[in-house]
Amino acid sequence: MRISELSRETGAPVATIKYYLREGLLSAGERSAPNQATYGEEHVRRVHMIRALTDVGGLSVADTKSVIDAIESDLPVTRAFEIAQSTVSEHVNPETLDADALETVDSAISGWGCEADDPGRLAAARVVMNFRKAGQGTHPGWLARYAEAAQLVAEADLDLVESRTGLAAQAETIVVGTVLGDALFAALRRSAQAASTIRRYGDPSRE
Amino acid sequence: MRISELSRETGAPVATIKYYLREGLLSAGERSAPNQATYGEEHVRRVHMIRALTDVGGLSVADTKSVIDAIESDLPVTRAFEIAQSTVSEHVNPETLDADALETVDSAISGWGCEADDPGRLAAARVVMNFRKAGQGTHPGWLARYAEAAQLVAEADLDLVESRTGLAAQAETIVVGTVLGDALFAALRRSAQAASTIRRYGDPSRE
Repeated sequence: MRISELSRETGAPVATIKYYLREGLLSAGERSAPNQATYGEEHVRRVHMIRALTDVGGLSVADTKSVIDAIESDLPVTRAFEIAQSTVSEHVNPETLDADALETVDSAISGWGCEADDPGRLAAARVVMNFRKAGQGTHPGWLARYAEAAQLVAEADLDLVESRTGLAAQAETIVVGTVLGDALFAALRRSAQAASTIRRYGDPSRE
Repeated sequence: MRISELSRETGAPVATIKYYLREGLLSAGERSAPNQATYGEEHVRRVHMIRALTDVGGLSVADTKSVIDAIESDLPVTRAFEIAQSTVSEHVNPETLDADALETVDSAISGWGCEADDPGRLAAARVVMNFRKAGQGTHPGWLARYAEAAQLVAEADLDLVESRTGLAAQAETIVVGTVLGDALFAALRRSAQAASTIRRYGDPSRE
């Protein structure tokens, strides 16, 4: 397809696609005439992926580029996860954290064998700190149930990755899944809360 | 405490606190002299809550104000959840969604009794659409496991809310929990993925 069709197919303006091409986020199309190139289905997918990373994940173009470079370098799964996570996650300086908040997190994820500098561990401790500052006690039981749910999701994520063939395809699933999985879980959490409140307190719209 | 101490205690600049006071996000301190007011612990907690909502939750000052107004009007739990969710969540126009993506979500959350316009349901369907567009098949099993985990978290959230005494305190937990809970889960998901990849594929740092 021509660039105009790629634009129609993906909803991305032609100028945006040209920008992706210039920045190396998107590989060049096949040259079909001196001033014309053709694009394929892999370009459609890639444009959608770039938009998922930038629009849903809030990644900068530079970060999107480094994640895409990682996908294309045939990395083992462990390494691909590390790159996806460190690009998508905010980095928390351990020195800004209370020992107490770290301890609370550690007791909820004991047995996971997390490194001291695990970015998820540090980010979780910061949330616990913010929670307490806002006057909210965090029950140890509450955090442990979050941790249990996170394990279910992580295992589901890894199974999804393993269902894909080839390192590049697996890395693609890791990157897209890391960004979109957070949004998916947050959405389902809202629905589940609505369902649970109605189960516990009845449906106010039917009163 | 004086406003300068409130600033030191919370890390919020005095100008920011004055802005919160002007906008009605923070209640006035007790007047102790014609040009001086004293603030208490509830002001410290409230400033931390405002910052959690704006900084972590990305809420505008206007949205933060409407959520805080809701907290102060002694609403029943069901209604407080609705307000917190509708303020924090992005609104998805159902007309932009594929029937197919909605069907996929519905089959994962069947039995929850969600309304057709449930914001979580619509947001989840949009994520599924973005996932597919980026060339990622979503296994029905993968989504169902996310839904199962979301139910665990929602039940934990409601138990935390019920552990608080009084409607205002419960509404406070709902609002803070809705915003910070997403960040907490995302952080724990990262750690759980790291733990699970090491369990499945070994630890690359020990090779």
